[in-house]
Parts: sequence; C-alpha cells; structure tokens
Amino acid sequence: MSVKKAGAQSVQFSNPPVIAGFASVAGKKENEGPLRGCFDYVSDDSYFGENTWEKAETFMQKKVFELACASAKTEAAKIDYVFAGDLLNQCIASALAFRECRVPYFGVYGACSTMAESLTLAAMAVDGGYASKTAAVCSSHFCTAERQFRFPLEYGGQRTPSSQWTATAAGCVILSEGGEGPFIPRVTTGIIRDAGVTDVNNMGAAMAPAAYETLSAHFEDFSTDPDYYDLIVTGDLGKIGHRALIDLFGDDGLDISARSIDCGMLLFSSEKQDVHAGGSGCGCSASVLCAYILREMRSGRWKNVLFAATGALLSTTSSAQKESIPGICHAVAISSERGAL
Amino acid sequence: MSVKKAGAQSVQFSNPPVIAGFASVAGKKENEGPLRGCFDYVSDDSYFGENTWEKAETFMQKKVFELACASAKTEAAKIDYVFAGDLLNQCIASALAFRECRVPYFGVYGACSTMAESLTLAAMAVDGGYASKTAAVCSSHFCTAERQFRFPLEYGGQRTPSSQWTATAAGCVILSEGGEGPFIPRVTTGIIRDAGVTDVNNMGAAMAPAAYETLSAHFEDFSTDPDYYDLIVTGDLGKIGHRALIDLFGDDGLDISARSIDCGMLLFSSEKQDVHAGGSGCGCSASVLCAYILREMRSGRWKNVLFAATGALLSTTSSAQKESIPGICHAVAISSERGAL
Repeated sequence: MSVKKAGAQSVQFSNPPVIAGFASVAGKKENEGPLRGCFDYVSDDSYFGENTWEKAETFMQKKVFELACASAKTEAAKIDYVFAGDLLNQCIASALAFRECRVPYFGVYGACSTMAESLTLAAMAVDGGYASKTAAVCSSHFCTAERQFRFPLEYGGQRTPSSQWTATAAGCVILSEGGEGPFIPRVTTGIIRDAGVTDVNNMGAAMAPAAYETLSAHFEDFSTDPDYYDLIVTGDLGKIGHRALIDLFGDDGLDISARSIDCGMLLFSSEKQDVHAGGSGCGCSASVLCAYILREMRSGRWKNVLFAATGALLSTTSSAQKESIPGICHAVAISSERGAL
Repeated sequence: MSVKKAGAQSVQFSNPPVIAGFASVAGKKENEGPLRGCFDYVSDDSYFGENTWEKAETFMQKKVFELACASAKTEAAKIDYVFAGDLLNQCIASALAFRECRVPYFGVYGACSTMAESLTLAAMAVDGGYASKTAAVCSSHFCTAERQFRFPLEYGGQRTPSSQWTATAAGCVILSEGGEGPFIPRVTTGIIRDAGVTDVNNMGAAMAPAAYETLSAHFEDFSTDPDYYDLIVTGDLGKIGHRALIDLFGDDGLDISARSIDCGMLLFSSEKQDVHAGGSGCGCSASVLCAYILREMRSGRWKNVLFAATGALLSTTSSAQKESIPGICHAVAISSERGAL
C-alpha cells in the first residue's frame, strides 16, 4: 500500500515504478552545448523536416516517444497511458503528436514543470495497478515559444540578462511495473506559490520560491535533508533562480550548493551560447533528464537523485492584465536501486 | 486491487471513490436555460465583480471550489490534490484560481473533456491510496473563449448554424475515500481520434467519433451494452454531434437514443437562446454534471450514469496551419450504490 500522510504533499510508492526506457530529442543549438552528443536524435534544421515550427514540435514528440519505446523494448501499443504536455496554447503539440497513436491519452499542463508532473501521474498509474506501462513526455521549441509568448523572431527583440532561452528539445520516459531500474520510489507534488514577481523576463525569480517550498516539503515529509541525495536537479531555474534557491536554503542554515544543479544551466553554456540566465521550456528539464541524468545513473555515477522541475504559471493575457507570476515545482525521486529510498 | 486489462482502456476500481460534494457556478444566460435555479452560484454580471473576463473565470473556479468543499463538509486544506483545467492559453484561469490555496496542484488539459479527465485522475488518486480527498474542477467563460478563439465580442461576428456557444460556467466535484455516494466505480480513458474534420465551427462532428470509440471501448471492456446505464451523458457534442453519435451506434445495430443526452443540449434551449448547435466549453459538462446529473442521482432519479465528456483538440494556430481537429472522450461511470457496477 502506497502511503501519503494526511496534510503531507508526498507519496512513498509501495511498488516503485521502473524507468524501463527513455529518450531525448534536441535541436542544433542544444547539441552544441555541454550535452553535445548525449541526445538520441538531433536535427540541424529547426523545422525538423516539417513546414512549420509547430509541426516540428509535434514531430519531436512523436520521435521521442518512438525512441523511448524502442529504448524500453516495447511497442507503442503496449503503453497503457501517455501523459503529455507542452507550452503551446491548448497543448496542441502533444495532442497532434498522439493522434495517430492508439494509446489512452492524458493531457497535462504544468508549464516547465510538466515533465515532473507527467512523471508523477505516470508513476501513480503504474504503482496503483492501473497500468503496466506508461509514458511521460513533453517538449518545447524555441521558435514556437518565442512567437507565441514574446515577439516574432524576425523582429530581433533584445533579451534582458535575466531572460532564459526556451530549449528546442523533448524528453520521454517509459515507466513499467517490472524491470531493473532506475526506480521512482517517491514523489512530492507542488503547491502553487505566488511570490509576487511580475517580470516576465525573470522566470527564475518567480520559480525559486516554489522550488524551495516543494523541496522543503519533500525533506520534511521524509524526515530527511538535502544530503540524502547524491544530486538535486532543478529545472529550469537558470542561474538567477538557482542562486535564489541556494540562498533560500542558506537562510535555513542548509548549504545545498555542492549537490544542486539546474537543467537550465546544464543544457547550455551561458558564457558561450548567449542564452543569458540559461535554458527553459518543458523540453529543457525533460531532455536533460533523459540525455544526461538517467544515462549517468545507469552508468553508476549517481544512485539517488531528486528531480524537481519548476514551472512559471503565466500567459501573455495574464501578464497584460498585470497579474504576478505564480510558480510551481514537483519533485520526483529516482533511485538506481529498488528499496534504496 | 484495481483492475485494468492489458490492452483495455478501462479500470474497475476496487475501492470506488465517493462523490462527497459538488458545486456549480453559472452566468446569466446559463441560468435562463432549462437548468434555471439549479446552480449553486449565479452572477448576472459577466465580470463576476472582477475587472476582466479572465479574472472572472479565475473567480468562478475559486468560488466553485469553495462551494464544493462546503458541500462535502470539508475544508480546502483537507484536499490532498486538485486536478484543474480550462480552455485559456496556458490554462491560466485554473493556475491563478489555486495560487492562494495551499493544495497540491495538477494542471490538466483535455479541452471540453477536461472534467472527465480530471475526475478520472482524481478517482485514481483516491482509489490508489495517494489521497483521502481530491478535487476535480474546471471552467469556461463565453467572453474569454470568444476573444481568444474567435473574434473580439465587439466585432459582432456571425455564427454558423453548426457552431456551439461556450458556457460561462464551472463545476467542481470533491472525491473522498469514504462516504455515502454516489460512487465512481469505473473509468474509460480516451484515445485521440482524428476523423479529419477541419471546420472549426462544427466541433460536434469532430468529437462524435471519439465519443463513439470511447463508449464502445467501455461497453467492450465491461462486456456490457448501452442499456446497462440509466443514462449516457455526453458533453458537449451539441445537437449535430449527438445526432452523429446516435447514428454511429445505429450502424452497429444499437439504439442509444432513449438513454443518451448531451450536456451541450441540456444547458441551453437551442430554440429559445440562439445558441445554434448547443453549449460547449469545459464548464458546460462540468456544470451540467454538478447542477443536474449528480443532484438528480442523489434524489434517486437515476442509479447508474455514464458521464462521457468530449473535447476538440485544436488551437487557433493549428487551424491556421490547416490541421484537422482530433477529438477525445473520457468516460466516467457514476453509481448511486456501492458495488452496483
């Protein structure tokens, strides 16, 4: 029996779902950064062979799902549920990606936290006995996001130093009730946290308080501390949000700097790639998880990782109406050994 | 142990979650239709006292959640998870509604099928032991939807006969692990179905094939037929989509017309209210479920109901790029007696 304490935000799974396979897809710029060569599929063409960027993003989700199924040595038809999301209005990249695929479909939206949200629900579906295999998938595309949220690319808008660069990337994880691992033993679901930030070019500041609260809840719910994990990987706070997170824990007398990294800082080199505060987008943490974190866990580098994806909950309309930007963060513990957590 | 057969789309819950409370919120026009007087909160002001329609929609979700908690005789703080969604870009009405509420939050998106999607996930969370109480909530607002998807209201655009009227309404259901019922014993999760429809003013035609497939899967998975239910309530096919659904079952030799009704046809009087093919929007099926179906079930009118909400998966961008409109439908069985289904 899985356990969730009343009032707590976390679940300890009795049958930790197994990460049976995973895959990542990335664009040219992403493959020129620190994770060069780590992605399963890369296109040097921002259109991925399609005739619009939106169709490219749909292609990316189809491709990453196909590759993840292959990695898990399963067929798409054997997946009981897919949990998918993206940043586009009405999550359309995901919906169109799965329209040719005969898999029961749940659309999810958690902004850039979507990979952790979909992994959480996909894990509950397996542990709960509702599924043998599930998929968690999400994507983002620099060009679809820029023109939807900011300016047409042709405009050549200036970017502020605190702004982040939306990743052209996708990630997919296949969970299974059996197998060798890694495993998902625990999850902590986020509460929306509005810190009053209104600068749409500083998402890191908007999301850091949510990351701090979810991680704190996780440590409290499991009576543990940050040192329990080999790695705490947030995404995508970028360098400003990541600094803020370290400072927030510092106020509690906890130094998490040695074991805390951020997907937005891992995907791009902020010095060499002109991405300012770092990467962002649902596809950033999803692709870093699948191209780097899970690969390194399989190779034995890390045993226990806490993946805490963060999202900024805004729209162009909410910003125009002077709303502040609430953040959310969901944390998913990943362990290379069953029963280690 | 809950059961999902391999390859099947359905789950039979071993501990059917209880519908502990529910509430509905509606606008003026909705309260002038056939369900006049059935809503828990009505505003004659399309702004609901706020200064934008988007803020009004956020208010509606906050209000309906508050009323549903009161109906379930619980406090918001006792809800373990909320599953919320709406039609606005980045599901922003939901996110802003729950930013002051300290409840773990899952954003979901299934277009007008969102109420059934959120109910399904909320039911799995309770049956799976991850939660004692969960909330499923969604909303739509005619004015926010019109200006986002179609034209500024001031433009006074003509509507085609097949078009539907987005409901200004919200619904919320609180599920609990214990109580008197009604219960949710079974769910069938939809597969995306693209029938090739491209007319954005004929959502009913785009969604009817998805409704047919999900209902057929439900009957097959449980080796039953439409007569098993007192009522099969789709939403929101409108009168064109509903006719198409009856015809699709007719081709199989099944006449579902006597027990099949549609939320889009229940919420408005298409003769008297100039809504053309009927109502639509996440809030349509959500409010009809909470204002009418569940109330009548509690009064003993119906014992077993199959609630099958339908969604059209499109965006203004996908339509501009000549994509067809896939549909999705999720079915949730509701029974007034534990163990009846």
